[in-house]
Amino acid sequence: MRFLIIIFFFISAISNSQSIEIGEFKTITSKILNEERDYSVYLPEHYNDENFSNQKYPVIYLLDGEKYFHVTSGIVKNLSQGFYPQIPECIVVAINNTDRSRDLTPTKVSELPYKSGGSETFELYLQNELIPLINKEYRTLGYNILIGHSFGGLFAINTMLNSSNLFNAYLAIDPSLWWDNALLLKKIENLPETSFQKIKLFLANANSYKLQKDLLNRYLDHYNAKNKFIKFSKEQNYKDFSFYSKFYKNEDHGSVVLPSIIDGLRYIFKGFRINVRDLIKNPGLLEETYKKFSKEVYFNFKPQSFYIDKVVDFAIKNKLDENAKILHQFNLKTYPENTYLKYKIN
Amino acid sequence: MRFLIIIFFFISAISNSQSIEIGEFKTITSKILNEERDYSVYLPEHYNDENFSNQKYPVIYLLDGEKYFHVTSGIVKNLSQGFYPQIPECIVVAINNTDRSRDLTPTKVSELPYKSGGSETFELYLQNELIPLINKEYRTLGYNILIGHSFGGLFAINTMLNSSNLFNAYLAIDPSLWWDNALLLKKIENLPETSFQKIKLFLANANSYKLQKDLLNRYLDHYNAKNKFIKFSKEQNYKDFSFYSKFYKNEDHGSVVLPSIIDGLRYIFKGFRINVRDLIKNPGLLEETYKKFSKEVYFNFKPQSFYIDKVVDFAIKNKLDENAKILHQFNLKTYPENTYLKYKIN
Repeated sequence: MRFLIIIFFFISAISNSQSIEIGEFKTITSKILNEERDYSVYLPEHYNDENFSNQKYPVIYLLDGEKYFHVTSGIVKNLSQGFYPQIPECIVVAINNTDRSRDLTPTKVSELPYKSGGSETFELYLQNELIPLINKEYRTLGYNILIGHSFGGLFAINTMLNSSNLFNAYLAIDPSLWWDNALLLKKIENLPETSFQKIKLFLANANSYKLQKDLLNRYLDHYNAKNKFIKFSKEQNYKDFSFYSKFYKNEDHGSVVLPSIIDGLRYIFKGFRINVRDLIKNPGLLEETYKKFSKEVYFNFKPQSFYIDKVVDFAIKNKLDENAKILHQFNLKTYPENTYLKYKIN
Repeated sequence: MRFLIIIFFFISAISNSQSIEIGEFKTITSKILNEERDYSVYLPEHYNDENFSNQKYPVIYLLDGEKYFHVTSGIVKNLSQGFYPQIPECIVVAINNTDRSRDLTPTKVSELPYKSGGSETFELYLQNELIPLINKEYRTLGYNILIGHSFGGLFAINTMLNSSNLFNAYLAIDPSLWWDNALLLKKIENLPETSFQKIKLFLANANSYKLQKDLLNRYLDHYNAKNKFIKFSKEQNYKDFSFYSKFYKNEDHGSVVLPSIIDGLRYIFKGFRINVRDLIKNPGLLEETYKKFSKEVYFNFKPQSFYIDKVVDFAIKNKLDENAKILHQFNLKTYPENTYLKYKIN
């Protein structure tokens, strides 16, 4: 009894200062990599809202997880909230490193002072272990995005060129395309036009030439390889392949990461945003926008239920009851299993 | 005993999935505002590192805390980490709203459908309750930054014009300068040149005219007021006042927030970043850079001890032992109370 009282006081004491949690840190035992792998998971604001417990979400897989989980989940949360969301609510899975250069590079380059050449195995780990586990444990939509920087960007582009269809969109931030005498340039030049179908790629191009030319010749290779890749991809006109590259003249290889995560997510979800004030006046805009957006993103996206519900409330607040009813009917039709919606408005 | 065993298994079970915490959620009873006020605190990566337990930190006060704490603390963490930090490690204090329009607006405008005119009281709350509490509870450096968006930006600029010296730098994101017939424009026009000394201001200017002109005339007022403020501030040449405004032609009033937090923090800490590869070759660069940076930021900044220590290790790794010793001596001289440094290298 005394023990329980102590526990009670302990809980009371900490309730004045509550810790702010943004996700779960987890470990998986990988047979493919023969090691324990850490990853972190951020769940969207409405994930545990029982009113929307059937909602499925896109998943953002993030390399160099230990470095970018906090800020990327924050960016995703922020871009997806409010009355003018720029992207849908997404799950973020951040993948922590054990041996970064080993996992993210496609070939073994023996003269380098670190391990390399393990990306094929790492891709198998994602394909057969991590992604299936995430799909099992969480309500995933089947729309996956991969974000990688530097070697992570190299890995992202290589995975895309492998046509593995693991991801629907890639955000390659200043990728190390100089790797192994610009190996991936040769790979892309020999690809048929039907490769990597229905894919969006955002390539962030930092000013590595100007700001880091003093370091190593490799940075010049970096600059040249990226530019050649961009030029080639633009000319090639792959079928159902959307590609955008942005050159950041004031950013170097390191500082470019944050702005490109924001820009890249906005590019991938271009066409998603709706002016809510127009929407409550013209409810047809919802289906119209998502139809167009789905085509552009090569995936059938439906508006998230909590969002439609929020717009319904906003329409009611603005005394547009008829339009509120139309939007609510659309929500019910799109999410017939959502009992909350059934009883919300009689 | 059985109870302890149960607790043990409970702890074991959750250790497979550990929650990721980024800060503390706290409450203060304000006499000035006569209400309970919530705020969140993010502490820097090295704050609880016992090797650097004397380090003091700048504090970033963030309005609309409930909306921006997660992402802003993530941005601050990211910009301050690694070998090329762009800003120092900072504490983030996010201030949650109770009645946003009441607290953040300087005058009562009775025809509006919400409360207004309470910013003087809110400023007193910050000055006499929240900031002193933060200074008491945490190791603060005495360098404070205020970040506010919209009405929060209005509050930031008004606080700056009040010459209260509460903050050393302001990040006003698309501030509502249209407020009460552009009241703050008149205020700034009548200020003597000696006002708000030793202050840096970053003003983010969204494209509210182009993207939101359909909404209300107020957005045109917004656009005009901001531009007049920018023009006047630039022409006025206040003594020891650094001002930078950036126009975001592709951002509207809402979407401008994230890019401006990144740009604004970089502007405030302009001159802070050092190329670590140059530094280990030329240790004198450290004092030189901080001397220049301190002058530009109107505050005597010293390099953070953990950072110098990291550079020392990097110099040793690069076999520049003499320079490592010079940098270590500088660290010892700057932080004589740091016992870790005393025993680290004999």
